[in-house]
Amino acid sequence: MSDDGRVTYGLRAIGVVHSPYGEPADIPREWNCRKGAFDAVAGELEIFPEHAEGLDGLEPGSSLVVLFVFHKAGYSHLKVTPPGETEPRGVFASRSPHRPNPIGLTVVRLAAREGNVLKVTGLDMVEGTPIIDIKPA
Amino acid sequence: MSDDGRVTYGLRAIGVVHSPYGEPADIPREWNCRKGAFDAVAGELEIFPEHAEGLDGLEPGSSLVVLFVFHKAGYSHLKVTPPGETEPRGVFASRSPHRPNPIGLTVVRLAAREGNVLKVTGLDMVEGTPIIDIKPA
Repeated sequence: MSDDGRVTYGLRAIGVVHSPYGEPADIPREWNCRKGAFDAVAGELEIFPEHAEGLDGLEPGSSLVVLFVFHKAGYSHLKVTPPGETEPRGVFASRSPHRPNPIGLTVVRLAAREGNVLKVTGLDMVEGTPIIDIKPA
Repeated sequence: MSDDGRVTYGLRAIGVVHSPYGEPADIPREWNCRKGAFDAVAGELEIFPEHAEGLDGLEPGSSLVVLFVFHKAGYSHLKVTPPGETEPRGVFASRSPHRPNPIGLTVVRLAAREGNVLKVTGLDMVEGTPIIDIKPA
């Protein structure tokens, strides 16, 4: 329980993203509106060895949902103004990283698996992003 | 840091699900393969008042991604055998609740917002499920 009586949950990273993007500012602004811009962006999902067995059955060519931590978000707001817009909106009507729980969601394409490493395309996360979960899309 | 040196993250529920399903066993087995079975299942996402402002801008009729805690999962496995299958597969190639980080993802349809309560259809979570995040689908 937290100090206001709300239940809290602990998550542990299952792996880490390797990406050509070093910082959030490196990621093109288009990510919110047209994810197709990232189809060619290749990188790796390195899953820690103790979880590698959990990857069995993932099919190259398939799409994967990746849950991750916005580990550079730093703060959260209830109202945000998305890039290219002028009116603020509720954070739950946006994909801002500055959320009460800074968990991100993206969909990547699996190119190949090499042991505990997934080679993927469609990346829009930065280098070092902690991975929380992978699910079939 | 956890005792093996891996970084951990703390999440706090932003709300709670009100559902006609009381226990996981009440949820039809079809959930994994044809989510359409739930189109008519109505319920509520009660967002705690301190986060209600974050709902501004959600449009009735739109689809919402809901991240939640599988709070009744209790344990995790790296290999699981989905309902109706005979061969085990890696948990990351499944939607089993018994995951290293027991976070679930579903998509619901927003019927109406009443203050801090979202009336939705398409529910496949049980009563009392902790909500972690809501994003536009």
